[in-house]
Amino acid sequence: MYRTHTNGQLTANDINLEVTLSGWVQKIRNKGFIIWVDLRDRYGITQLIFNEESTPKEMMDRAAKLGREFVIQVTGTVIERESKNPNMPTGEIEILVSKLDILNEALTPPFTIEDATDGGEDLRMKYRYLDIRRNPVRENLIFRHKVTMAVRNYLSDKNFVEVETPYLIKSTPEGARDFVVPSRMNEGQFYALPQSPQTFKQLLMVGGMDKYFQIVKCFRDEDLRADRQPEFTQIDCEMAFVEQEDILNTFEGLTRHLLKEIHGVAPGNFPRMTYEEAMKRYGNDKPDIRFGMEFGELNAIAQHKDFNVFNSAELVVGIAVPEGNKYTRKEIDQLIDWIKRPQIGALGMVYVRCNEDGSFKSSVDKFYDQEDLARWAEATGASKGDLICVLSGDQNKVRGQLSALRMELAQRLGLRKSNEFAPLWVIDFPLLEWDEDTQRYHAMHHPFTSPKPGQMQLLESDPGAVKANAYDLVLNGNEIGGGSIRIHDKKTQAKMFDYLGFTPDEAKEQFGFLMDAFQFGAPPHGGIAFGLDRLVAILGGQETIRDFIAFPKNNAGRDVMIDAPAPLDQAQLNELGLRLDLK
Amino acid sequence: MYRTHTNGQLTANDINLEVTLSGWVQKIRNKGFIIWVDLRDRYGITQLIFNEESTPKEMMDRAAKLGREFVIQVTGTVIERESKNPNMPTGEIEILVSKLDILNEALTPPFTIEDATDGGEDLRMKYRYLDIRRNPVRENLIFRHKVTMAVRNYLSDKNFVEVETPYLIKSTPEGARDFVVPSRMNEGQFYALPQSPQTFKQLLMVGGMDKYFQIVKCFRDEDLRADRQPEFTQIDCEMAFVEQEDILNTFEGLTRHLLKEIHGVAPGNFPRMTYEEAMKRYGNDKPDIRFGMEFGELNAIAQHKDFNVFNSAELVVGIAVPEGNKYTRKEIDQLIDWIKRPQIGALGMVYVRCNEDGSFKSSVDKFYDQEDLARWAEATGASKGDLICVLSGDQNKVRGQLSALRMELAQRLGLRKSNEFAPLWVIDFPLLEWDEDTQRYHAMHHPFTSPKPGQMQLLESDPGAVKANAYDLVLNGNEIGGGSIRIHDKKTQAKMFDYLGFTPDEAKEQFGFLMDAFQFGAPPHGGIAFGLDRLVAILGGQETIRDFIAFPKNNAGRDVMIDAPAPLDQAQLNELGLRLDLK
Repeated sequence: MYRTHTNGQLTANDINLEVTLSGWVQKIRNKGFIIWVDLRDRYGITQLIFNEESTPKEMMDRAAKLGREFVIQVTGTVIERESKNPNMPTGEIEILVSKLDILNEALTPPFTIEDATDGGEDLRMKYRYLDIRRNPVRENLIFRHKVTMAVRNYLSDKNFVEVETPYLIKSTPEGARDFVVPSRMNEGQFYALPQSPQTFKQLLMVGGMDKYFQIVKCFRDEDLRADRQPEFTQIDCEMAFVEQEDILNTFEGLTRHLLKEIHGVAPGNFPRMTYEEAMKRYGNDKPDIRFGMEFGELNAIAQHKDFNVFNSAELVVGIAVPEGNKYTRKEIDQLIDWIKRPQIGALGMVYVRCNEDGSFKSSVDKFYDQEDLARWAEATGASKGDLICVLSGDQNKVRGQLSALRMELAQRLGLRKSNEFAPLWVIDFPLLEWDEDTQRYHAMHHPFTSPKPGQMQLLESDPGAVKANAYDLVLNGNEIGGGSIRIHDKKTQAKMFDYLGFTPDEAKEQFGFLMDAFQFGAPPHGGIAFGLDRLVAILGGQETIRDFIAFPKNNAGRDVMIDAPAPLDQAQLNELGLRLDLK
Repeated sequence: MYRTHTNGQLTANDINLEVTLSGWVQKIRNKGFIIWVDLRDRYGITQLIFNEESTPKEMMDRAAKLGREFVIQVTGTVIERESKNPNMPTGEIEILVSKLDILNEALTPPFTIEDATDGGEDLRMKYRYLDIRRNPVRENLIFRHKVTMAVRNYLSDKNFVEVETPYLIKSTPEGARDFVVPSRMNEGQFYALPQSPQTFKQLLMVGGMDKYFQIVKCFRDEDLRADRQPEFTQIDCEMAFVEQEDILNTFEGLTRHLLKEIHGVAPGNFPRMTYEEAMKRYGNDKPDIRFGMEFGELNAIAQHKDFNVFNSAELVVGIAVPEGNKYTRKEIDQLIDWIKRPQIGALGMVYVRCNEDGSFKSSVDKFYDQEDLARWAEATGASKGDLICVLSGDQNKVRGQLSALRMELAQRLGLRKSNEFAPLWVIDFPLLEWDEDTQRYHAMHHPFTSPKPGQMQLLESDPGAVKANAYDLVLNGNEIGGGSIRIHDKKTQAKMFDYLGFTPDEAKEQFGFLMDAFQFGAPPHGGIAFGLDRLVAILGGQETIRDFIAFPKNNAGRDVMIDAPAPLDQAQLNELGLRLDLK
């Protein structure tokens, strides 16, 4: 047996006990006649002591030669420490070692195994197994486990059944690109890895499973942006015989349970906001409502003066930055530079200082008097001491730009508090969105989403106005879940595919099995999927999903630790009936 | 809201309650003036009643036109039934319907949605969503969910952390064939789908995770035998600072917990048997010990007579078939034909009838007298009324043949009771096995398995004799789990790769990251993996894993429901830099 206790376990209650411990050498302090070693494992650190008086010389010598990250096993007696450390559970004791075994030596690690390491991102990815030894990374993974256990137990208690759907499925051109898997037994044919178990969970509803969930890996072969992974994990859920209200209530319950279990917080009923309202008030369909700074639309009060920039704009809109009047002219210029960066793309910014004396000073004083500016302040909710930032232009663009500014300033002002949780349902999404590239409408959620009752007719006359039975759960400015009530009859589904540009043959070839299934008694059904990686990061009060994934890939989709992907043997390619045909 | 209650919920306590129910039409009995409908959902069946007295004519007409598997919603009052059904939880009541809505019509299903269906295997696979509506299939999937929840909660309570390892990894030629995934972003390169998370779980141990588990899909591109799936699920576990004893105790605990939770049985300590002993006593490394019929080796007592078949054989071995003397000559001949089939491959069988009067009658009376046969009976444990079946020949072959016969006869005799559970550890597996095809030794478990202490030296002198720190958990004649204590130092691992025929470059290219990791302080570690599909089937008292998989593939690796795999667009192939090169 390698240990009788872990390194986080022994306290003053165990004094005089003979124990065996194993772990990694965290730190060595060698005073010659005394050597202290901090022994680490997942559970904590226990201090070992070797001293000339009681330790044989031979063992003193071996202890002196221990290096950082050596794996050792010791037997010894729990004794009271001279200088106690009240900040550690094991801080009152140490182990007087009577037996020392080196289980494995260690090269000097390429970065320090400390909470704050000196290792850069690349090095830590290459030696991820060493990075995982660091408390913050390991704690993130344990936190992820706790969240998934809480999810599973909650849903299971509510009669949801976790069903494993297949990973080797069929490629469909809808949505992002599929990863594909050549079949050797069916030469020239390919499986695809699922972008989500969408059709399978719908078939489970047709199959009477009633309540399904699955925590499941999904795959998207997209050009990776920062903090996107080619493989990611979903909490995938579906229910039969439900309306939108049932889904919102059920998963509000789940989210409330997680917030309670993990943070001990119990938010009230989650607010609901239509997509349209979210766009108007926050310029964003996943608004962070932990703070205000809501949009004030100024068209009515700022247009029809002599300021042509505003007059020609589709939308003039501003926000009040709390205590922003403190900013120097230079700081405001930097802000303007910030929103003019290509990533944001604003052409300029008008600002109004709200002075403590109630007067205003704006960058457009030539065109607007104090009375005008007072109305702007009213519309944006600005108080004395604030700064009003105003953007103008194309409505969609300008909302996105002002939303980015709002988030950036809130971050700088410390308004995005990581220990505060503000959930929100965004509902009534449009069914379709216009795609400039293909010059046609695409399904905003996916082609299985049902339109709101009675709106199917609008499809021909005013497609952009059709609202969907679709909803997102937003937490602290992040979409953590999204779903919809599905179409459940063949006719509507066929019409939807037709509208989205599928020929009847394509629709049949790709989704025939689903439309067939709808003919054999499909119940009304709907569901939701949560992005687990992001959910865990946000619940953990952090932003980067990579920090909550054991073995993440880099932005080129590579695992730099194992060096994958990699070339394949010609023999393997031959077996698959494939040849490389590189560009 | 589609329902106030499910169809398994209402009882006599609810009489006079107004309720809304939804579900599928299971059955209709139309007496003209009264129509009864059985309404089904996952939770049960509730009887609906429409009758001329209280139901408007229009609704009677619509009820009369309902078909099997129509999806309907009804509102009505719970009333007492005239003819009660004590076998159903809802058997005392029925619903007098006041409102009927048809939510979805249904074509006549291609097979009956009943516990005993008239649908053949192929049809049920194609319409799997209808098969899942049948109670036995749905209950299997719910059973699987319960088993996985029990596993997760048990392991989590024992400080195991479920960590998700990646699915897009690197192809390695060891073991079975990998499924590969071409990378678009890294053209000409491929990921592989994991055959198991073996190296990642070992890296988690190097990373100090201490106790890891994961219920995870794994992939093997093998020519499929009956009841093998290209994707299958493992309960994958690993622990640091453990010896074999720790692993056996931990997972004996898990198995005991499952048997207790699911079947209320509490077997004693699991017996342990060496591989050698299992082969000698049962001819099999996964013996079913629910019944006896142990092997009796007869070389010493049956050779050196005039029967040359035995004299020239490496092994002469028999089993006693309980009450087998009842078999007619014809039945025994059929048994001989059975073991001569190519799948079994025996050349013949000698048998001895053990008569009730204590005498023996054998097929080799010319060579053996009553005294000889009495010694055979003693060696095989045969009693009066039994039949002794004796095979001879090459030791490995003959053990396999007699083991097959033992299992077949036990099945026919009803000795393999599905409600009886006899777990067993098989230990001390050989490290290596000889491969006739490649004319060299292969790792019996995998190349990361450690030899027993002090046996590494034997590798050169007597490789076949080296025992491994490897163990299997056997339940009712099935291997449900297997694992080993791993190598955890670079030198030994490099030596093992060398011995298994990897060049140093190959070893470095494929497993360099693991050997690098071993240099930075790898703890002693080991683990086990359970085949979940099989485990669930056996715990469910059944044999076929396919019955416990929601969407299984057929023996050609095809999903006949969605029709995958399928050809790929040329455009998709171009993006991947691939061309078909079919044989």
